[in-house]
Amino acid sequence: MTQATGMFVAETHTSAVTWLFTIEKMILEGKTKYQNYQICEIPRFGKSLLLDYNIQSSLMDEYIFHECMVQPAMTLHPNPQKVVVCGGGEGATLREALKHNTVKQATMVDIDEELVDMVKEHMKEWHQGAFDDPRSTLVHTDARQWLVDHKGAGFDVILSDLPNPHEDGPAQFLFTKEYFQIAADAMSDDGVFAMQAGCANENYPFCMVSMIETLESMKEVFPYVAGYYGIVTSFMMPWGFVLASKKHDPLALTEAEIAARFAARGVKNRYYTPRYHHSVFTLPEYLLEAKREHARIVTDANPYKWEA
Amino acid sequence: MTQATGMFVAETHTSAVTWLFTIEKMILEGKTKYQNYQICEIPRFGKSLLLDYNIQSSLMDEYIFHECMVQPAMTLHPNPQKVVVCGGGEGATLREALKHNTVKQATMVDIDEELVDMVKEHMKEWHQGAFDDPRSTLVHTDARQWLVDHKGAGFDVILSDLPNPHEDGPAQFLFTKEYFQIAADAMSDDGVFAMQAGCANENYPFCMVSMIETLESMKEVFPYVAGYYGIVTSFMMPWGFVLASKKHDPLALTEAEIAARFAARGVKNRYYTPRYHHSVFTLPEYLLEAKREHARIVTDANPYKWEA
Amino acid sequence: MTQATGMFVAETHTSAVTWLFTIEKMILEGKTKYQNYQICEIPRFGKSLLLDYNIQSSLMDEYIFHECMVQPAMTLHPNPQKVVVCGGGEGATLREALKHNTVKQATMVDIDEELVDMVKEHMKEWHQGAFDDPRSTLVHTDARQWLVDHKGAGFDVILSDLPNPHEDGPAQFLFTKEYFQIAADAMSDDGVFAMQAGCANENYPFCMVSMIETLESMKEVFPYVAGYYGIVTSFMMPWGFVLASKKHDPLALTEAEIAARFAARGVKNRYYTPRYHHSVFTLPEYLLEAKREHARIVTDANPYKWEA
Amino acid sequence: MTQATGMFVAETHTSAVTWLFTIEKMILEGKTKYQNYQICEIPRFGKSLLLDYNIQSSLMDEYIFHECMVQPAMTLHPNPQKVVVCGGGEGATLREALKHNTVKQATMVDIDEELVDMVKEHMKEWHQGAFDDPRSTLVHTDARQWLVDHKGAGFDVILSDLPNPHEDGPAQFLFTKEYFQIAADAMSDDGVFAMQAGCANENYPFCMVSMIETLESMKEVFPYVAGYYGIVTSFMMPWGFVLASKKHDPLALTEAEIAARFAARGVKNRYYTPRYHHSVFTLPEYLLEAKREHARIVTDANPYKWEA
Repeated sequence: MTQATGMFVAETHTSAVTWLFTIEKMILEGKTKYQNYQICEIPRFGKSLLLDYNIQSSLMDEYIFHECMVQPAMTLHPNPQKVVVCGGGEGATLREALKHNTVKQATMVDIDEELVDMVKEHMKEWHQGAFDDPRSTLVHTDARQWLVDHKGAGFDVILSDLPNPHEDGPAQFLFTKEYFQIAADAMSDDGVFAMQAGCANENYPFCMVSMIETLESMKEVFPYVAGYYGIVTSFMMPWGFVLASKKHDPLALTEAEIAARFAARGVKNRYYTPRYHHSVFTLPEYLLEAKREHARIVTDANPYKWEA
Repeated sequence: MTQATGMFVAETHTSAVTWLFTIEKMILEGKTKYQNYQICEIPRFGKSLLLDYNIQSSLMDEYIFHECMVQPAMTLHPNPQKVVVCGGGEGATLREALKHNTVKQATMVDIDEELVDMVKEHMKEWHQGAFDDPRSTLVHTDARQWLVDHKGAGFDVILSDLPNPHEDGPAQFLFTKEYFQIAADAMSDDGVFAMQAGCANENYPFCMVSMIETLESMKEVFPYVAGYYGIVTSFMMPWGFVLASKKHDPLALTEAEIAARFAARGVKNRYYTPRYHHSVFTLPEYLLEAKREHARIVTDANPYKWEA
Repeated sequence: MTQATGMFVAETHTSAVTWLFTIEKMILEGKTKYQNYQICEIPRFGKSLLLDYNIQSSLMDEYIFHECMVQPAMTLHPNPQKVVVCGGGEGATLREALKHNTVKQATMVDIDEELVDMVKEHMKEWHQGAFDDPRSTLVHTDARQWLVDHKGAGFDVILSDLPNPHEDGPAQFLFTKEYFQIAADAMSDDGVFAMQAGCANENYPFCMVSMIETLESMKEVFPYVAGYYGIVTSFMMPWGFVLASKKHDPLALTEAEIAARFAARGVKNRYYTPRYHHSVFTLPEYLLEAKREHARIVTDANPYKWEA
Repeated sequence: MTQATGMFVAETHTSAVTWLFTIEKMILEGKTKYQNYQICEIPRFGKSLLLDYNIQSSLMDEYIFHECMVQPAMTLHPNPQKVVVCGGGEGATLREALKHNTVKQATMVDIDEELVDMVKEHMKEWHQGAFDDPRSTLVHTDARQWLVDHKGAGFDVILSDLPNPHEDGPAQFLFTKEYFQIAADAMSDDGVFAMQAGCANENYPFCMVSMIETLESMKEVFPYVAGYYGIVTSFMMPWGFVLASKKHDPLALTEAEIAARFAARGVKNRYYTPRYHHSVFTLPEYLLEAKREHARIVTDANPYKWEA
């Protein structure tokens, strides 16, 4: 037995377990209107961002989350020119979208201006200049309302990189069928939508499988819906995403076709590679089981309530 | 911010993070010559075994670890009759092997008799009577020496379910090239070997990739070597395994063939299913990267030293 | 920096700090109708009792708490024959009272029969046979009601060794002016009352000083009221008590008189010694300050609510 | 049971217990040549200083530690004019000494210049301008060597406010008989020496009682030696000090005399008051017991080794 000495941040993952991240150095700490944040050094993980004491991303593996957040959807669209990022505070989701040289305009809509201002200055390893790209526009407002206001805008890809739907949290109504319809209405006829959908482990698959279920219930809008996941070590679990597509089938995409698109568009990935595409979209049995047993259609009237 | 009240077991995973498992109830606690153990209730995980304050398996997902430990190797062999489990304390590895009705004899060689005695009585949900199966034999001795003594015995499948190779730990020399040769010498000409090989996350892939490297260095003995992994939620990460085969290629096995073997042998799995076989064997890029950069051939002269 | 490995019980002491007790061995664990309990080995503290994950007493220093709980009141009374212990689960308060050979009858009234049954068998180091003393009677009922039922019984000493007054807890109405009146009514004309009154540190003096204030508001019943404290290392702080006396003044007792009483009654103490009597009753300035600023009279209508 | 969420600093107090301080806000963090430091907000404790992850002082009760560190010795001396503080980083020990208007020169000798520079700017609530007092001089060098160099200087009071004597720590040889002799040689004929001497609880009294023992072994130099303690809530225990005096007996000082000196010198205290003087110097039995059983004379040849 050994006892602890040092500085730690505690994050609780269900009633089963609490993670104590070792904090080697607290780089910056603050509070915005919406959340508190810490930028700190975690041994081996490197520089990391915590929001409300939950780990958001670390330099060790932020590329995995952000490639998963962006690359399947961008790659699936044959010619993504107009892209929207809903949320996406660190700027790394925007960065990943801009990798595709087909992009003409990329708009990031994040309600937390103070956080993004902080990120611009203190998290350059994440955005890598994405905010200064001439194709980028940054808007600070509610992403759902912004999409309502852009009905018919014909976006090719919408990437929903939002906080988990905690009760009374700012993103609760951006995980509902109505929101997905609003996104669809702002997309082109062959638009692709992707979202981060929560934990994809056996302990808390509930949000992810309900997101799949909800998007699948919109067959007339999104004939193709596919859950997928990335192994995000700093999250201590696989993380879930859902892709919904108006015209193109992600599972029909071949390794060769993906490789060709990457080559044509100048895209280089570390996690979502042509070889690995199929595995990313093949869900483990426990997720299929959880979907059969626990999934429901999530609506504004009955929104998802993330359990602490 | 909230503070903790209650009972917890702390397990450290590298310098980055400590896991605090919530202990709802301590069922049994003790110490053998080799290790201390706790059987306890963890919320959502259910009844769980901890060894030296490291989580070993929980009812929630022990099937994932144990199917991965056993099923790929057993399935690959066209007619596994003689099986050896090295280690395998909980009896669940033995249980998984016995699922295949081809098996005529299954010998479990675990050095820790006190632990296995405790398991027989207090962990029935794990072994499910496997120790009483007439095909089973239980031996309490060092597994490596036992295999030396059974050179030429012609085992079809050897399953190495041993503790991680901590320096001066009981299993350090059961993660070396020499040990693998000893196992090969006790196997039939088309024998299959599988081992648990440690963490398969991006933070600590080092043991697993060195085990692949070491087995790959024995091409004349094992022409087919493949790393694979299972998503074990209670371990907070994907877990790594390596399969080494004298004659049969695991990647050549088709979904249909696997389904046929399961049907013929009366095997039902929850995680390692025909559909999922391919995904299990497709390693994420970061493991391939780690293998290129950090793997080495591990020998008795230079054994692996697991970092705390 | 070092990280934790092992088993721990966490107890929160206000929003400022959480204590993680190292659990070397869990001896017994269970749940009664009123509380959960653990008997465990804590390094250096030795065998210890936890109730609802709060440390109650450890072999290292239970004598300090229990001498303070009992000896000042018993010693002050010139001839204590009839004694009541309200609460007192471990039996050590009873043990301390029985040290005085003047005692003819000692009644312990503890509502939690299951706990006391457990204590009898598993905490012999605490009660040391006190329950079997022919002078002892054990009653399992609500202590307040029992005292109501014994109005006029003329007890010489009443010792109130009850859990802190948590909202909706079993002892909330045994920390009120009405309860103190009930106790007074069951006492002889020169009876002495003593109670454990909560933390006596600078961080949470609020309960203790309100108990002093409340008893001081009953001058016609208890002309002498004195707060005092013991340094209980396993509680991480000095612990507060209040003595209220109908006739005898604790501060008038001289070192010589105390020594004489101890000698006459066969009492040997380790903490509350004649030499140390005065120090025990001399409160540090911060408690006097807290009393001036924060104390209030606590009544059934407005009971004390212990903050988590 | 509840689980933790938030930021915490863990400090270990022997193998028995670890304290997790809740960190509401990290104000400043850094590292000097000698130690790392954090200035942070702890709920209820307020702004606090941690050195090497051990709590040093908090606004809630730093006055208790610092009054105990300074006031008994200063008060005992009939006319303290020349004062030396060895260590004393926060400047609060210096502040307390300067309260006595008899003081003509006060020299603080602290080896850690970087820390004191930080303190000057960020811990004004502690030093309250003491560094700018025209009577103050600040020297950054080893205090022991500085005292050697000031042999015969005739200081009236020397206050040794140094870190605990960890093996190979900077203060290990400032807790030895030889160091005490060096201090004596730099003092006037009626000089008074006081030191912080470590924990005064029942769990770890070992350093304190050996310091008393060591100073008592120097009867020809210090005819009067007295251990005393202050209840420092943020340290989770009473804290020990030792006073050694060449001519004046601290126990002979009456309440009235102390009050007169305070009045004459313009001293106002919150903890060490005339009324409380006697209690401060009356050690609990467990310390006397520990002294009988565990104390030893500590010398350069056999220095004290603080246990983690």
